Formats: sequence, structure tokens, C-alpha cells
Amino acid sequence: MENITPLSRTLAAALQDKIDQKTKPPGSLGRLEQIALQAGLIQQTLSPVINKPTIAIFAGDHGIAAEGRVNPYPQAVTAQMVYNFLQGGAAINTLCQQLQVDLVIVDAGVNHSFASHPMLNDCKIAYGTRNYLHEPAMSREQCTEAMDAGAEIVQYIQSQGCNTIGFGEMGIGNTSSASLLMSCFTGLPITDCVGAGTGSSGQQILQKTVLLQEALNRHGVPEHPEQVLATYGGFEIAMLCGAILQAAALNMMVVIDGFIVTAALMAAHRLQPAVTDYCVFAHCSNEKGHLAMLQHLQATPLLHLDMRLGEGTGAAMAMPLIQCAAAFLENMASFEEAQVSDRTS
Amino acid sequence: MENITPLSRTLAAALQDKIDQKTKPPGSLGRLEQIALQAGLIQQTLSPVINKPTIAIFAGDHGIAAEGRVNPYPQAVTAQMVYNFLQGGAAINTLCQQLQVDLVIVDAGVNHSFASHPMLNDCKIAYGTRNYLHEPAMSREQCTEAMDAGAEIVQYIQSQGCNTIGFGEMGIGNTSSASLLMSCFTGLPITDCVGAGTGSSGQQILQKTVLLQEALNRHGVPEHPEQVLATYGGFEIAMLCGAILQAAALNMMVVIDGFIVTAALMAAHRLQPAVTDYCVFAHCSNEKGHLAMLQHLQATPLLHLDMRLGEGTGAAMAMPLIQCAAAFLENMASFEEAQVSDRTS
Repeated sequence: MENITPLSRTLAAALQDKIDQKTKPPGSLGRLEQIALQAGLIQQTLSPVINKPTIAIFAGDHGIAAEGRVNPYPQAVTAQMVYNFLQGGAAINTLCQQLQVDLVIVDAGVNHSFASHPMLNDCKIAYGTRNYLHEPAMSREQCTEAMDAGAEIVQYIQSQGCNTIGFGEMGIGNTSSASLLMSCFTGLPITDCVGAGTGSSGQQILQKTVLLQEALNRHGVPEHPEQVLATYGGFEIAMLCGAILQAAALNMMVVIDGFIVTAALMAAHRLQPAVTDYCVFAHCSNEKGHLAMLQHLQATPLLHLDMRLGEGTGAAMAMPLIQCAAAFLENMASFEEAQVSDRTS
Repeated sequence: MENITPLSRTLAAALQDKIDQKTKPPGSLGRLEQIALQAGLIQQTLSPVINKPTIAIFAGDHGIAAEGRVNPYPQAVTAQMVYNFLQGGAAINTLCQQLQVDLVIVDAGVNHSFASHPMLNDCKIAYGTRNYLHEPAMSREQCTEAMDAGAEIVQYIQSQGCNTIGFGEMGIGNTSSASLLMSCFTGLPITDCVGAGTGSSGQQILQKTVLLQEALNRHGVPEHPEQVLATYGGFEIAMLCGAILQAAALNMMVVIDGFIVTAALMAAHRLQPAVTDYCVFAHCSNEKGHLAMLQHLQATPLLHLDMRLGEGTGAAMAMPLIQCAAAFLENMASFEEAQVSDRTS
């Protein structure tokens, strides 16, 4: 994996000056100004552009789903939802279509044999992870393979002209994985990391918590981030981790979605702390642990829309804001250009 | 003015059922689900569509600006910014262009004679209001004239096929007017209603507060909402009030911007309380009083982007969210259509 360098601040003053000369009170575009500045630093230019914004969804299945106690939906839903993505019927399809965002779908390890499909990228590591109640979810080799596959997908997407990439996921049981990763990376007790997922009730959340504590009792907190990923992760989560790292290494703007994608980012951040310089945190999900995750990363999310769907839907909703940030920086007139008087005091 | 009827809830259950059958955990699209439901109720259909989303900006000047103590920018900036709108150089131009939102510019009462321009709607009531430190800002006749002009503009925009309209404003000194309206309509002391506007310092905010308290001491709190508007309002604010009422009366979705537009809505809400059924509150502005205004209206804003620019920029940013809400309701597959298993528990 290439090294990710912290963002150079060389252009920061010139970018801020350009922002402040626009015909508006200083600071009055709020978060859009911050994103414009970040885009300029990432692209090392005073005129950043958002090219071919793309959402890449990684789907995978989880051995833990066999316990039947972590999710109200059956495991078959992962594959069914992949078909739904391919047919254009899922939430992320309609949002991407409405917002003119490209969509890339990746089979990271779904427990189903898909026929070849022009929209489906086959990166299947295996037919789902193993059950971490009994053994690590995957081998170190599988984890590395997944991370490499994520990096390759991003390299391809970037080669097609994309410089702004959001990530999403699908996988019945993957909030459980994300909760375990969160607990390992933050040190918070598992009770603080478990939420309703796709809609578990109070009793179900308690069962889920007990189960995940069992897993933690069995395996503990592995020292190396990749070992944490291999022990408790999913193939889609490991692939997301590799994809996020590669996107930052390629100086792309990385748009982080909700609970599961942020868990993947936490692993990436442990491996290469500078990765967050390249991230825009799209939203705060309603999944219970997400806010604490964001706080741990000292991240301020853009949107608070009470969403908790995954699939990259939160990342998609942030794309127009990012595009508007670049647009005002490029297209707004300065006080001088528009002959508008600046402040008198 | 036509009567605004509270939204009929007849279709609410059928809309909620349609939303819940989509391939996603119930409620997981959060605020988008609420907007989809509201759009369906406003349009009285299970398949609402967002047609020709438009921002209408009303510009006007304020007699109080002569005091030179309410705003760090000179009054001439109002007219200069109208030219900036016409030339496409302002923030709202770039946001509308990026988001494919139509833009309508209205001279409600700018202290400048504009040459005729194809993009400028001339509804000038006068060359700025009078100074409410000495006399009411406008006569009751002018206030009615302004409200009627706002209604007419909206009727025209609707006749061109728009069913979703956001409002914006420009006017040096108009946060002062909005603060006075807020104090009158909420009963809050003026100190709770005054903020930095375009960027006043602490000392300037204090001077502004003292000045506005003087105005309140002189005129008190008039009984009738139109009298409040006439005493302390601006032509653009009265026009906004008429425009908002007309839009709701025409069953349009009304997208409320920041501090000044919400002040106009408060007057509209006093006249016709059902108007808020038709409103989407685009964002919470960083202008100090806006949050309390929203709370007074029991409104939950969509976005929190630390923006405080006016011009309808907050309303513009909410448009893609509203479009996505309608898009998921129309285009997402149901569990049955996509053959995705629903919850087992």
C-alpha cells in the first residue's frame, strides 16, 4: 500500500483569500467554504473540480448471520439486494440517478453465485466470512486479498476520470462487525457500540450485544489493525478499508457514509492516520454508535437526516453539497469583478 | 388573499404504506421519508413530482440603513448585488446553476433605478422603506401592495409549471427588520433576536440592539400582523409574506430559507396558521435568532451547514434533498417487486 501524505497546506492561504473575495460576507457559506478549501488542498489547485462523482458499494455476507440473532432480515437479503442494485430498484440507485452520480457495485463475498452481469464487479473472496463466535472471520491472506481488491477497484474508477468517491456497503450482519471494530478501535465497551442495525428491537439488541461480547471474550482485541479486520470484519469491510486507503493515496476526495463505512475508515486510519485529511464525512447516521465513532475521529458530519440505510445513501446525499462547494469557488464573482462594495467597517 | 386549508391527511396512511414497502428498513431514509409524505399530502397523490424547482429572490432597501449603524456594508450593496444576480455572479446563481434550479429576481423596492432587464421583475413599491426610528417603514397601502405583488409573482411562476418554490432575499439592513418582526411575533426581548447579520462585531451588534429597542419603544407591538409588517418590515419582506401565502394557497411546496424569510413566514403564519403545513424548513442559519424562530414555529430544519448568506442559498441547498425524496417514492422497488425478503421478526 502506498504511503498517504498529510495534506500540504501550501495553498491554504491563497484558497482562503479566494473564498473571502467572493461577493458574500466572510464565512457565510459555512461548511461549503470548508469543503471548497479541502478540495483545493486535496487537488493542490485554486480551482478544484469535482469529476465523475461515484459511489462504490461493496457487498458481503457474514458467518455470524447463521446465529439468526443479529438481524431481523435473513442472510439471503444480501444477494437479493445485489440483484436489486443491478436492476436499479434500491434506494442508492434512485438517489444516484437523481443526483447524477455514477454507481459501481462490487461482490466482495456474497453467499450466492451470481451470473456474470455487466454492472457487477466480481471480487468475491469467499461465500461469506466464517462465524467469529467460533473462529476468526477470515484469514490474514483473505483480508489482504480483500484490501488489495478494494484498492484495484478504486484505481480503475479513478482511471475513468473520477476524483470524488463515496463508499457504501450491503451485508446482512455487518453492523455487528462494525460494532466489534468500533469497540476494538475506540476502546469503548461493546454496549456503546451496538445499535438497532436494520431495525432490531430492544430485546434483539440485547441478544446481539451478548453475542458480540462472547466474540470479544473469545478473541480479545488483536494488536494489529489488519488482525482486527480479519478477526471481526467482513469482506466488504476489508475491501472498503483498502479502497479508502487507495482513494486517499490517489488524492481523491473520499466521501464517508455511515456506521459500517466509518468502521472501515477506523481501520484505515489506524494504518495510515493521514487518510482522514482526504475524507468528507457525509452524514451522521441514526445507527447508535456512529456519532461516537465520528467524535473519536474528530469528524464533523455534513448532514443530519436521521438516515440509517447504508448502501452509500448518506454519501450520495452529500455529493450535491460538495459539487456546490467547488462551483461557488470557481464561478462566483469577487467583489472586484462584480463591482460590489466591500465592508466599510 | 385566498384561504389556506390545513393539509388533508386522507392519503397519509396509503403514502406511509407505500414508503414502508420500499426495499429498505422502515424509517431508514429518515427526513427524506417525511418529505416524501409531505409532498404526497400537498399534491394529494401517492406519486408526487417536483416540477421546475425555483428560487425567487426579493430585493429591497431599508430606511434604517441611513443610521449607518446596523450593517458593515453600505446601502448601495443592495443594488450592486441585484446587478450581480443579473450577471450570474452571486452565490445563489452558482448554486442554482449547479443544482438546476430556476431563479427569479424581483426588485421589491431597491433604492436604485434599474434599466429594464429580461431577468429583473420590476415590482418596486418605492426607493426603499422609511426609517422606522422616526416613522413606520411603510404605509398599510404599500404593505398590501407589496403582499399582492408577491402573490402575483408566485402565480406567474406556478403558471409556468413550478410546484416547488424556495424564497430568498437581499437588502442591506433587513436582518434588523427581521429581528424586530421576530421580537413582535415571538414576544422575545430584542436582545434575543439580534445577531451579526452580514458580519457585525460585538460592539456593532450592541449598537444595533440599542437602535432596534428605540424603534420598539417608539412604535410598540402593533396588534395586526400586517401592521407589524408595515411598521418594521421591508418591501421584500412584505412581498415574501404575500408570496409564501400564495404559494401555499396554490398547493405548492414552500421551501423556507433563513432568518429573513422565516420572519416573513412568521407574519404569514399569524395571518394563516395552516401555511406551515406546506413549508419545508431548508436549514438552520448561523444568524443568531434563527434557531429560536424555528423553535417558535415548531419547525425542524433539514440542513445545518453554518450558512448565513441569505439570497435563498439555504433553500437552494435543500432542493436536491426534496427531489431525492420524491424520487425514492416514485422509483424504488417494493419488497414484492424486487423479490427481496422482508423481516422475519
